[in-house]
Amino acid sequence: MWRGIRTDLAMEARELAQEQKQYEIPGIRVENVEPVEGIAISRVEVISKLGEKNIGKPMGNYITLEAPGIWDRNPEYEEQVKQHLANEIRRLIRLNDDSVILIVGLGNWNVTPDAVGPKVVDKVLVTRHVFEFVPDQVDDRMRRICAIAPGVLGITGIETGEIVKGIVDKVKPDLVIAIDALASRKTDRIGSTIQIADTGVNPGSGIGNKRMGLTRETLGVPTLAVGVPTVVYAHTIGRDALEMLIKEFTKQAESHSEFYKMLQSMNEQHLNSLVGEVLTEGLGDLVVTPKEVDMLIDDAAGIIADGINLAIHDGLSLEDVNRYFH
Amino acid sequence: MWRGIRTDLAMEARELAQEQKQYEIPGIRVENVEPVEGIAISRVEVISKLGEKNIGKPMGNYITLEAPGIWDRNPEYEEQVKQHLANEIRRLIRLNDDSVILIVGLGNWNVTPDAVGPKVVDKVLVTRHVFEFVPDQVDDRMRRICAIAPGVLGITGIETGEIVKGIVDKVKPDLVIAIDALASRKTDRIGSTIQIADTGVNPGSGIGNKRMGLTRETLGVPTLAVGVPTVVYAHTIGRDALEMLIKEFTKQAESHSEFYKMLQSMNEQHLNSLVGEVLTEGLGDLVVTPKEVDMLIDDAAGIIADGINLAIHDGLSLEDVNRYFH
Amino acid sequence: MWRGIRTDLAMEARELAQEQKQYEIPGIRVENVEPVEGIAISRVEVISKLGEKNIGKPMGNYITLEAPGIWDRNPEYEEQVKQHLANEIRRLIRLNDDSVILIVGLGNWNVTPDAVGPKVVDKVLVTRHVFEFVPDQVDDRMRRICAIAPGVLGITGIETGEIVKGIVDKVKPDLVIAIDALASRKTDRIGSTIQIADTGVNPGSGIGNKRMGLTRETLGVPTLAVGVPTVVYAHTIGRDALEMLIKEFTKQAESHSEFYKMLQSMNEQHLNSLVGEVLTEGLGDLVVTPKEVDMLIDDAAGIIADGINLAIHDGLSLEDVNRYFH
Amino acid sequence: MWRGIRTDLAMEARELAQEQKQYEIPGIRVENVEPVEGIAISRVEVISKLGEKNIGKPMGNYITLEAPGIWDRNPEYEEQVKQHLANEIRRLIRLNDDSVILIVGLGNWNVTPDAVGPKVVDKVLVTRHVFEFVPDQVDDRMRRICAIAPGVLGITGIETGEIVKGIVDKVKPDLVIAIDALASRKTDRIGSTIQIADTGVNPGSGIGNKRMGLTRETLGVPTLAVGVPTVVYAHTIGRDALEMLIKEFTKQAESHSEFYKMLQSMNEQHLNSLVGEVLTEGLGDLVVTPKEVDMLIDDAAGIIADGINLAIHDGLSLEDVNRYFH
Repeated sequence: MWRGIRTDLAMEARELAQEQKQYEIPGIRVENVEPVEGIAISRVEVISKLGEKNIGKPMGNYITLEAPGIWDRNPEYEEQVKQHLANEIRRLIRLNDDSVILIVGLGNWNVTPDAVGPKVVDKVLVTRHVFEFVPDQVDDRMRRICAIAPGVLGITGIETGEIVKGIVDKVKPDLVIAIDALASRKTDRIGSTIQIADTGVNPGSGIGNKRMGLTRETLGVPTLAVGVPTVVYAHTIGRDALEMLIKEFTKQAESHSEFYKMLQSMNEQHLNSLVGEVLTEGLGDLVVTPKEVDMLIDDAAGIIADGINLAIHDGLSLEDVNRYFH
Repeated sequence: MWRGIRTDLAMEARELAQEQKQYEIPGIRVENVEPVEGIAISRVEVISKLGEKNIGKPMGNYITLEAPGIWDRNPEYEEQVKQHLANEIRRLIRLNDDSVILIVGLGNWNVTPDAVGPKVVDKVLVTRHVFEFVPDQVDDRMRRICAIAPGVLGITGIETGEIVKGIVDKVKPDLVIAIDALASRKTDRIGSTIQIADTGVNPGSGIGNKRMGLTRETLGVPTLAVGVPTVVYAHTIGRDALEMLIKEFTKQAESHSEFYKMLQSMNEQHLNSLVGEVLTEGLGDLVVTPKEVDMLIDDAAGIIADGINLAIHDGLSLEDVNRYFH
Repeated sequence: MWRGIRTDLAMEARELAQEQKQYEIPGIRVENVEPVEGIAISRVEVISKLGEKNIGKPMGNYITLEAPGIWDRNPEYEEQVKQHLANEIRRLIRLNDDSVILIVGLGNWNVTPDAVGPKVVDKVLVTRHVFEFVPDQVDDRMRRICAIAPGVLGITGIETGEIVKGIVDKVKPDLVIAIDALASRKTDRIGSTIQIADTGVNPGSGIGNKRMGLTRETLGVPTLAVGVPTVVYAHTIGRDALEMLIKEFTKQAESHSEFYKMLQSMNEQHLNSLVGEVLTEGLGDLVVTPKEVDMLIDDAAGIIADGINLAIHDGLSLEDVNRYFH
Repeated sequence: MWRGIRTDLAMEARELAQEQKQYEIPGIRVENVEPVEGIAISRVEVISKLGEKNIGKPMGNYITLEAPGIWDRNPEYEEQVKQHLANEIRRLIRLNDDSVILIVGLGNWNVTPDAVGPKVVDKVLVTRHVFEFVPDQVDDRMRRICAIAPGVLGITGIETGEIVKGIVDKVKPDLVIAIDALASRKTDRIGSTIQIADTGVNPGSGIGNKRMGLTRETLGVPTLAVGVPTVVYAHTIGRDALEMLIKEFTKQAESHSEFYKMLQSMNEQHLNSLVGEVLTEGLGDLVVTPKEVDMLIDDAAGIIADGINLAIHDGLSLEDVNRYFH
């Protein structure tokens, strides 16, 4: 219904595009996996410039896992999510036994809802130095992982992209995986949806509004982005509320259907811009996160880190990973 | 416009009551101080049982400071707020030179938006032990302050009220000041509004939903509550958004006024309950806090702690307080 | 060899007494369990006033677990230690199914080597509130645990003993377990030795130098103390070094045995006081902890908390405890 | 007296060399500033290869500030130390108005005694991004500072030197200042002595035992090292204790002078190696830090950061710096 909505999720971009068009969008290919144990997986591929234009995301693959059960904090369920995440990550990467993978934890560790990247770095099983300096201690079910949380511009005074590029030039990894906290347009996706994209991190996405992207173009190596929504814009809550009400009104008795007719009769674009203006004026740039943000960030970081651990160190089980972390 | 809205702020309760009644509410007395340097102070006194019923708050004094400039983090402005807060606290308390004051920092230190109470405890100038054990080191511009952050039920397994009552029975303070994080109905009051109430903390208020109050009745000593909103219910954002839109629609050209007529024609209570239902279903119990919650909580705690330091240790300047804290 | 050495461990007090007397000490009974898997257990009972006088600890039971392997951070080994600790705790307590147990985490959470008590409180499976408020969710393999980290005098302005007594008077537990960080005289006991005592915590013991004890006498209920050394006095390192050297010198060729003769010829008390003076002047009150203090405190707290979880919730396995903590 | 003692302080290296030689050491130049307000400054210059060999430090300038009063936490005194530190830093650097300075906070933020570098990064006034992206907001009393805490090998899997070199290649600073936690041989230097060296950080120095240095040679730009001792090896405490006792014994009555004679008669090298062996066996690699390590690290980081702030942003006063940090 609404144009100009800012979202970091390709899935949402597609939904929005589709709501407006009412038919499947040219230039993209969508595959929805039948949900298993409450985990829904959707794979969107943007296959042409037309697709890029239609959903506003660069050409490439975007996989979304929706696991609303995460909020219940059930350990078996979380294990399922980690395994599915590992599987989907593996779909988008090609590794040899001696590949070097650099994990980049984007975001600001002093801002709880932006700290998911740095927390993943803490929980990823870093091994590159073992291969380099104590090769006889290498567990050969592992690959070479290194990891960095570069901080944000306000802390370092340096663009994140410059720092990462400098490190990539030295370490020469075969793959970069960048972790980022995202903004979603639906409150119920916070902490429970994970997006993987082989297009990397693009300028302006994420909570911290990066100026420079982290992509194969900028870094010179394949770059995977793994993101999780941790915030929503307050005015999207307002928009959602209005949408809910409109849907409800139109379901109700005739007296209310007047409302629907009226909305219909209005120029749609006029309505959009009116709503946008009013809410932006009233709520400003307010970005919100659930009260339980501390727990949510810890959980999301744990799931993403273990998804990566399983995907990269592919001979290890979750139990092995836990043992190594003790 | 909406009934049944949950708020911890007496000021908001009054606003809500007034919106419904369209005239001044019997049983309460209101004094608004002309804003100085952008700091607005309103003093509400609930003077009778009728007032209690009308705004849903027990008889007593409720002072609210609104200081929207806090978000700009200007040190001079914050100093002004601390001084005003100290003055307003002093209006509601009576102390002797040898009074003992117990500061109780309510809330959960593991949940950032609920951690304001424990953080105030960290920043209050605790002195009672100096008077007790090293009396020759006492700075006689100070009073006896002691402080506790009792934790929440889920951490301790004990009702906060029981813990505080146990300590009050031993320490026998002349005054308890309980600090709490609150829920507001307006996002723009988060972190920028402070409420002082000589009625203490009542059951069910605050983020943590206390079961047992901390009041003169339960504790046996005068009990002041100092609270700051740190969260809003997501559906109040939805309601506010809808209200904003309705106001805007009614201002617009005739075609839209249909909408207003329609809303008018509906039974108001029906509309209320409809909105309530839809938003509650859609947004659940979601409680949100701004993305900047870490900084916001630190700032609010610093302001409240220094307001208390200045109000109680009334011979000290802010500079003295800072020196002692080094 | 040295008198006047300060130690919180009854085992060390006995060793010291014995070194001076050269025969078994009257008034105490000692049982050493044959070490299993590198975990040595010693049970000292002070059975008379004479025993109290001889080792400077009140009448009662003192059990020490020495598990030097803890520093290797092997999960299976840690599990063994937890099980042994649970068994030894059970030897000193009597519980019914509906007993209420209050865990008191002593120490200062802002001082890493003194934070073991508060960290145990974080890791203990608190259940009393479930029994009280949602009895239908009770897992009947559990008992009622509640827990508090009261802080230290410098933070609260209130004696820890007063706070705990106040809470005990309200909650009326059947048993108090107080956790404390201790000072040892041997660096190799840091983090790897755990002492359990049914005499509670006595004034002046522990890192924080409590003024008031937590004992059956002061609290009115049986009080178990669980302590772990986290610091040593720098001058005990100096003393140990000197002792090592003297032992080595006396083992060497004749030329060095002069030294031993000389030491022999000196009045022993004179030597002691000389050493004491010199080292105290040179090293002052310096108390030190290993560089790895952060990890050490986390590990010790995890082991003690799980030892308590297993001892109290005696139907639960470690796996169950982990599941509940997720 | 003892050979082979590991120290990161040039001042200590010189002391040790001198103790052995009993005369001034060739190849180094020493200037001791008359202590002002209890702050002693010594400037050691290693001027030749001979000097390098004699004290085991590369050619260059080493300035040491000893400020034992820091432990008293007096704000005026700390301000003095910051000013002196700024002055001494300025002696070793040459800057233009548009110089870019990269602060590198070495060490592990998860290990309290090794966290001083990362904490300095938090407290340094980072400005480079303001010059780059919002030049109209630049306060022209400032220079361009950027800062990074690269983490340690065990966390990142990448040599610190590689990370820093990568960033230096991108940012092209005119000066690097690397902050590090050091090991000292005297407990009383912990937290109260600061060393500045224009030779950078050399391999194997610091707590974390870097393999690769950060020097003008490795980085290609002038590199200043600022270090503060935060730990001592336990066996140096043992050695110090023995030395104290020997000094004392020789001052005492004749009967004890036997001891001195005996020590004299021993082959000195034999004694050294004996002591080394015994203590190393008895105390192992144990490295200790004072119990108050948390406060000590915070204070040291605050002093170093402000020393740097004043040295680089040379138009700012401490008050200005504090205002900017609010």
